[in-house]
Amino acid sequence: MTEKRYALGVDFGTLSARAVLVRLDGGGVEGSASLPYAHGVFPLPEGARESGRRLELQDPADYLEALETTVRQVTRDIDPAQIAGIGIDFTSCTCLPLAEDLTPLCRMEAFRSSPDAYVKLWRSTALEEGERVRQAAEARHVAWLRNTGGRVSAEWLLPKMLETMEHAPRVYEATAYYMEAGDWLVSLMCGEKVRSENLAAFKNFYLDGYPDRAFFRAVSPEWDDVLAGPLRGRVVRVGEKAGVLTKDAAARLGLCEGTPVAAAMTDAHIGVLTAGLTSPGDMLSIFGTSACHILQEDHEALPTGIAGWTRDGILPGLWSYEANQLMGDGFECFVQRFCPERVRREAEQNGESVYAALNAAVRDMKPGQSGLTVLDWFGGNRCVLGDGALTGVIAGLTHRTEPAEIWHALLEAAAFSMRMIRDNFTHFGLRVKRIVAMGGLANKNALLMQIVSDVLNQEIEICAAPEGAAQGSAIYAAAVSAYAGVAEAVRAMASGTGLIYRPRADAAAAYEGLYARFAALHDLLGREHPELIRR
Amino acid sequence: MTEKRYALGVDFGTLSARAVLVRLDGGGVEGSASLPYAHGVFPLPEGARESGRRLELQDPADYLEALETTVRQVTRDIDPAQIAGIGIDFTSCTCLPLAEDLTPLCRMEAFRSSPDAYVKLWRSTALEEGERVRQAAEARHVAWLRNTGGRVSAEWLLPKMLETMEHAPRVYEATAYYMEAGDWLVSLMCGEKVRSENLAAFKNFYLDGYPDRAFFRAVSPEWDDVLAGPLRGRVVRVGEKAGVLTKDAAARLGLCEGTPVAAAMTDAHIGVLTAGLTSPGDMLSIFGTSACHILQEDHEALPTGIAGWTRDGILPGLWSYEANQLMGDGFECFVQRFCPERVRREAEQNGESVYAALNAAVRDMKPGQSGLTVLDWFGGNRCVLGDGALTGVIAGLTHRTEPAEIWHALLEAAAFSMRMIRDNFTHFGLRVKRIVAMGGLANKNALLMQIVSDVLNQEIEICAAPEGAAQGSAIYAAAVSAYAGVAEAVRAMASGTGLIYRPRADAAAAYEGLYARFAALHDLLGREHPELIRR
Repeated sequence: MTEKRYALGVDFGTLSARAVLVRLDGGGVEGSASLPYAHGVFPLPEGARESGRRLELQDPADYLEALETTVRQVTRDIDPAQIAGIGIDFTSCTCLPLAEDLTPLCRMEAFRSSPDAYVKLWRSTALEEGERVRQAAEARHVAWLRNTGGRVSAEWLLPKMLETMEHAPRVYEATAYYMEAGDWLVSLMCGEKVRSENLAAFKNFYLDGYPDRAFFRAVSPEWDDVLAGPLRGRVVRVGEKAGVLTKDAAARLGLCEGTPVAAAMTDAHIGVLTAGLTSPGDMLSIFGTSACHILQEDHEALPTGIAGWTRDGILPGLWSYEANQLMGDGFECFVQRFCPERVRREAEQNGESVYAALNAAVRDMKPGQSGLTVLDWFGGNRCVLGDGALTGVIAGLTHRTEPAEIWHALLEAAAFSMRMIRDNFTHFGLRVKRIVAMGGLANKNALLMQIVSDVLNQEIEICAAPEGAAQGSAIYAAAVSAYAGVAEAVRAMASGTGLIYRPRADAAAAYEGLYARFAALHDLLGREHPELIRR
Repeated sequence: MTEKRYALGVDFGTLSARAVLVRLDGGGVEGSASLPYAHGVFPLPEGARESGRRLELQDPADYLEALETTVRQVTRDIDPAQIAGIGIDFTSCTCLPLAEDLTPLCRMEAFRSSPDAYVKLWRSTALEEGERVRQAAEARHVAWLRNTGGRVSAEWLLPKMLETMEHAPRVYEATAYYMEAGDWLVSLMCGEKVRSENLAAFKNFYLDGYPDRAFFRAVSPEWDDVLAGPLRGRVVRVGEKAGVLTKDAAARLGLCEGTPVAAAMTDAHIGVLTAGLTSPGDMLSIFGTSACHILQEDHEALPTGIAGWTRDGILPGLWSYEANQLMGDGFECFVQRFCPERVRREAEQNGESVYAALNAAVRDMKPGQSGLTVLDWFGGNRCVLGDGALTGVIAGLTHRTEPAEIWHALLEAAAFSMRMIRDNFTHFGLRVKRIVAMGGLANKNALLMQIVSDVLNQEIEICAAPEGAAQGSAIYAAAVSAYAGVAEAVRAMASGTGLIYRPRADAAAAYEGLYARFAALHDLLGREHPELIRR
């Protein structure tokens, strides 16, 4: 038998997928390839009538194309028999309806122009349906709700599926399975309908099983038998193998039949393995379009104001607590619409990004120098308020306010929002002893990282892994194939950290008072008077 | 004796002066000339050390140059003997220290680089000193405070003079007179030290006389004898002549010795004469850099949240109530710093102003369509809160917010702030039966005027006078020379109104709810939690 030397990981992000080939010994990245989704994100399929909703859709064919293309590319120079296993991570809840043979319904002629037959991207919301699901869960005392502090997000699988039933009953009737896109890909590869406990437990009401029928009936009488219908599928525990590649799947990917396949993981969680954050008090912070903070602890707490938590959801034997905040999207909007033309031109002349030029313009600004306080709720607040209808606020504007000052205040707001999340964790007895950062903003925006460190008055270590999430998926693949488990694979393959941002004493002291003002405005408008700033 | 056919009015604004020659019969404008101040507004004179303050200074020589140049220009084609009288209006409180012979101290070698020896422009604030003056007035139960609802502005003459004493004791010691710039010019013309009761009564603690020595002593022991010192000067009642041109002044202006001179009036008040607003319930609204609202009534009320009121302060026999709000400055800042380059280019291509292009971009927006609520306190709030340290707020921002939407929300905020002022007047039993608008924004920004009319649900008439304030000064000059008084001069010379903006029923209804949200945010942040948004 050929010696196993590699594990394969594929990270499915919002706009593209990336595959990496990782060495089993040491975890070095031997190859990497990515492909953007041909159809990106779209509000409606061709031929659809205006839905009146603000859907964010994707075409599942793009995932298959990205999977096959990138895997073939990173493995073209090696013997596929050297690959110990393959693992994938995916945005969540990114869901789609499937026929019995796992064909996406949007591929069927009858549903080609039906929006609900396509993939609903994680950030596509079903607000009204989310509230209905929440009410039913509350009324039926669903135990799982404890894990989210009673919160139900309009982005989750059940609201999305309910939305499909309400808006496209024919699509719903034809739905044999309603799945996370990550589970769908793994099921396709293994030739069996499987669901990842990681995906199910964090956002899909799964706690050693789904809630009872009475809950689903309370959501809708038509959901009486949903567990034997669209929600079917074997749930694979974290740390266990989902299956092995079928002959057909192996042929499409250019890999060997029988190659072990790990269960799909949430893209925001898998970096925990990459960074080797397996000790209680370790927090992974991924800074990107949004920022996601995953804290490992050795005990149960019942925090409110977080996204959710589970036991054994990422690492067997540990509790994982997740909180998140919108971030990069807000920066991007500023750059697109409010960045002065002068800065844009300077950036172009210097061959640098507009972000870099903006940072250069504010580099010497002192904490709070602009006098501005920003509540960065441009897409609502995720944590700690969990109110998607809130809007952003800029306070402290004067006749002298410059756009660059607003930029600086946006960076500060991101850091304040993160401190709110960290302090909320500690308020509930969860320790945040170490923070390792990952993601585009962590690597590219040094000023942001420094401000975060100052505001939190805590070190921020940058993970040295070049391909954060995908590497984690490869480690996970190794854990269910070459190694005896997650802990062993992490020990052998995790990346260390490189750059460390340390709080500057002066700035940290100054930010104490500024954070107090932020927190006061945050609570006044976000908790006491949300009606004044809700959409 | 030559027949008198004209009156001369000169309006001294923030950045330029304008003279008009007005016919005594009918009030037609025969000529007009303006000149910008050569030195504009500056924070420090040449050679001064950084003061640490945010002063806004002017050079008094610029006023003299503007007076002589513009008067000579509008009178060059007529016999100066035909001029019945001359009147001026000035921004207020725009003050300066003078030697015994009325030489500005900044002209003296010793004080050339001393900031406090220059003119302090109306909007230059002495915050700490204003508070000291207020405390002394409150402690001494100064009756005049009733006229301002207990408020003392950091922009007024006494705080400015106190600031000079504190920061430049040598300048203060050399100060024989501390005067409003308007009074200084009239005194120069008449060869006698005179002060206008209009200027003194609205902002300078004058109510049938200044407060007693105990008050001044309470402000500072050094002010024990200030009434016999820097505050000396004969106070000229409204409707009375200040004096006549000296031989020297006449020679400099190219006019006749002995020509009657009216007392200086506040630039924001004099338009009441231009528009002929002499009935109880008439309100003049001047829309410019800031907006000033002057309401005439036939009875006394004790409103709070206004700038001030006096009896006989503008029109003999009527009570005048004044309130104001910052406006055009905020628009200008947006245009300068936040207007998209695309809009700027469109404006250039179409040969129109950026304001016009922005208005065109938002013309079809419905009330509140942006979802934004703006508190336009970029330079503090004047009325009804009277808190200069407040700052501006933009709430309701989302990832989709466009700069043009902020522009629309700024226009709405200006209208909401004005409604707050009108409703405050009516709350105190003052009738606002008719509103006549004047000023740059009233004539140039039709969209703003329409939104104001919608939000107030009241007609806005635009004054037809081409040269609002300057014409009023000419009417005032005629009132103290050719006519038997203000009422008679107004009847003969006031302008009518032209364009009328009428509220659109749909928009007015929609703005009811939006105004309620504005008012709630206004009160929450402006009254209950100002500490969160104070500089």
